[in-house]
Amino acid sequence: MGRLESRPYIDNLMDHLAKWNEPAIRVLMMPRDTNAHGTIFGGVILSYIDQAGAIEARRQGLQFMVTVSMDKVVFHEPVFVGDLVSFWTETLRIGTTSITTKVIVEAIRGGHPEKKVVVTEAHVVYVNIGEDRKPRPIERHANAYT
Amino acid sequence: MGRLESRPYIDNLMDHLAKWNEPAIRVLMMPRDTNAHGTIFGGVILSYIDQAGAIEARRQGLQFMVTVSMDKVVFHEPVFVGDLVSFWTETLRIGTTSITTKVIVEAIRGGHPEKKVVVTEAHVVYVNIGEDRKPRPIERHANAYT
Amino acid sequence: MGRLESRPYIDNLMDHLAKWNEPAIRVLMMPRDTNAHGTIFGGVILSYIDQAGAIEARRQGLQFMVTVSMDKVVFHEPVFVGDLVSFWTETLRIGTTSITTKVIVEAIRGGHPEKKVVVTEAHVVYVNIGEDRKPRPIERHANAYT
Amino acid sequence: MGRLESRPYIDNLMDHLAKWNEPAIRVLMMPRDTNAHGTIFGGVILSYIDQAGAIEARRQGLQFMVTVSMDKVVFHEPVFVGDLVSFWTETLRIGTTSITTKVIVEAIRGGHPEKKVVVTEAHVVYVNIGEDRKPRPIERHANAYT
Amino acid sequence: MGRLESRPYIDNLMDHLAKWNEPAIRVLMMPRDTNAHGTIFGGVILSYIDQAGAIEARRQGLQFMVTVSMDKVVFHEPVFVGDLVSFWTETLRIGTTSITTKVIVEAIRGGHPEKKVVVTEAHVVYVNIGEDRKPRPIERHANAYT
Amino acid sequence: MGRLESRPYIDNLMDHLAKWNEPAIRVLMMPRDTNAHGTIFGGVILSYIDQAGAIEARRQGLQFMVTVSMDKVVFHEPVFVGDLVSFWTETLRIGTTSITTKVIVEAIRGGHPEKKVVVTEAHVVYVNIGEDRKPRPIERHANAYT
Repeated sequence: MGRLESRPYIDNLMDHLAKWNEPAIRVLMMPRDTNAHGTIFGGVILSYIDQAGAIEARRQGLQFMVTVSMDKVVFHEPVFVGDLVSFWTETLRIGTTSITTKVIVEAIRGGHPEKKVVVTEAHVVYVNIGEDRKPRPIERHANAYT
Repeated sequence: MGRLESRPYIDNLMDHLAKWNEPAIRVLMMPRDTNAHGTIFGGVILSYIDQAGAIEARRQGLQFMVTVSMDKVVFHEPVFVGDLVSFWTETLRIGTTSITTKVIVEAIRGGHPEKKVVVTEAHVVYVNIGEDRKPRPIERHANAYT
Repeated sequence: MGRLESRPYIDNLMDHLAKWNEPAIRVLMMPRDTNAHGTIFGGVILSYIDQAGAIEARRQGLQFMVTVSMDKVVFHEPVFVGDLVSFWTETLRIGTTSITTKVIVEAIRGGHPEKKVVVTEAHVVYVNIGEDRKPRPIERHANAYT
Repeated sequence: MGRLESRPYIDNLMDHLAKWNEPAIRVLMMPRDTNAHGTIFGGVILSYIDQAGAIEARRQGLQFMVTVSMDKVVFHEPVFVGDLVSFWTETLRIGTTSITTKVIVEAIRGGHPEKKVVVTEAHVVYVNIGEDRKPRPIERHANAYT
Repeated sequence: MGRLESRPYIDNLMDHLAKWNEPAIRVLMMPRDTNAHGTIFGGVILSYIDQAGAIEARRQGLQFMVTVSMDKVVFHEPVFVGDLVSFWTETLRIGTTSITTKVIVEAIRGGHPEKKVVVTEAHVVYVNIGEDRKPRPIERHANAYT
Repeated sequence: MGRLESRPYIDNLMDHLAKWNEPAIRVLMMPRDTNAHGTIFGGVILSYIDQAGAIEARRQGLQFMVTVSMDKVVFHEPVFVGDLVSFWTETLRIGTTSITTKVIVEAIRGGHPEKKVVVTEAHVVYVNIGEDRKPRPIERHANAYT
């Protein structure tokens, strides 16, 4: 399922992306999200990345999907309690049954709200599935996300 | 602390609001957020409302603040697992030491992403405090939120 | 749904209230409940308020209900880790299909158990609903809560 | 530490107990508290038992304590989502540095609020400790709990 | 249900135990697991003990079970954030419908990984039940755990 | 930080790996861990993967570290409530300041304990850091994990 089909980018993709100027997920980091070092636990960020990519996929028309792979997850900077963290997404590729998304995680520091920092990024692939949980061709359609 | 000062709206408020076309908070509802009826527990929504209003206040320059009151919280529609829920905010009034925010909660239904529904709204008041936890005059300044 | 019917207070309300000398909810505050400032996150208190009012409503005979509004939520004092927090309730008004409850939140400080402090209060309105999720007249009856 | 001193019951214990006609903890059970069978996870009940016994100990004057043992934990009946669960406590024995508490867990069924059911009970022993984390004699004094 | 049948130990029990050289549960302690003193909340440890004993019981062939009692829970040492905590189990006794397990909790200190410390231990009894939630004779069979 | 040094594998690595026949993390999946489809949320698995790789790194002598990247995360099969999930780890490469670990996630199905299924796998890289949060050479030493 990790192998992706060679079908090219869908033509009007940029139009869609152009409209998507809001984060997929945005959350405020709390003490309960910390690790033993007092910074935000990476697992918390990874959890939101998985959700954010799925929202990007849903926006492209997928309704029932499963995460099949993640790659190129890079943690650039730590995240702190009090940071407002946004998960920005874009679609890198739409295949017959799968979609590759990119998630960029940006923090507005609680203590220094004048700067935005890219803290993490990742690629996440989802497969569209049917009620039988088998891969099913993606049908694009308009929805509230566009 | 619930009594608010009669100072009028700060002039350039609309400019600021105009730039704020992204939600303060946006989250995906999960099964762990449900109540005994299987819909999203109101307390989960209220928690995000408190955070969203605080983010609005922070955007107006407050850095250390406490919630002093909430009013006009109206639950219009239930929220469901799988909904993508956005907390939109605006500033209703800025006084000497306090700020009144409005939070509008909108759900994009997981099962029907073609419609957006206003599910809840609320007014939340915060007071700017100093390190001594006493009210302190609000100083407006530019930051990453604007 | 926020508009409440003008039917007067039910006569024997005080009898019922007289019997209710136990808190609806009582919990010990833990580190996972804190906000970025190290005090208890307001959302945690609001969540218990929503539950406490529902327990008050259930005590008056409602079995399936939804929260329709909250008002006059005032946060008087911060709550700290280690505080034992009680949510006391009373019924302010019973209409045909809705009920207005008042919740008073009191903390016994972990560090100073000799004093009780009212930290928060709120009014919460619930509507009795049927299986079709539509408003349904409230039927009063005796139960374990009285 | 499990071996308890043979000092007899403190005389006025019953007076204290007589005043304690409120639960130490009272909570509403939510879906996030369930186990794989859909009933409430025993670990959730055990967590509140540990807190409830500690509140009973605090009421007897202990301020800084650690749990040293639990015994006679019996799960009589399952607990369900929607149950209002009360943790009633009493002091069985006060030694020089330790205290033995009994916690009785009672559920008011969400679906049948006319009956109360004892669902679990347990004995929990706490040791009073000083800042050095070593056992320290218990000093009885009046506080908000009595 | 706390009274256990007098049937002797099943003969090949030691063979089974000999194969079981892996912990039933092993987890890393996080800040969200702490109590007001900054050490790990006993309720967190108790929750994992309940799960660990159930895994031991499942390994002996039980598939649907309920916890009926816990005894001899002794907390020897505190557990800290950053500790890697293992829950080792053994079967003390298998009766007609119930099983008695022993859980030994061992911590590898985050700050001093060269030492292992037994922090807690407990006995937990489970009863095998059928779909009607009534006790049902235990049938031993091979599975992935042995 | 994602670029790893070209230093070859440390010679006695296999000896170390040979001793490590216990999972880094092992947990029972609960209803609170589910996504909107009722299977276990990928973010929960990713969180434990991050912890498991860190435990592998700690076993190799790192004490204070940060996650710098994840790659080749493949979700092979869904995970269900009631599954006992083990996170097995190995060290793929130790550089001057960083370590590359592999985490293999295996589920024993709650409903069919006779089979083990590899559900997910991932590569995770950690960098050893000093108190100044800057990369610091890894020093190998014996500890409780070997």
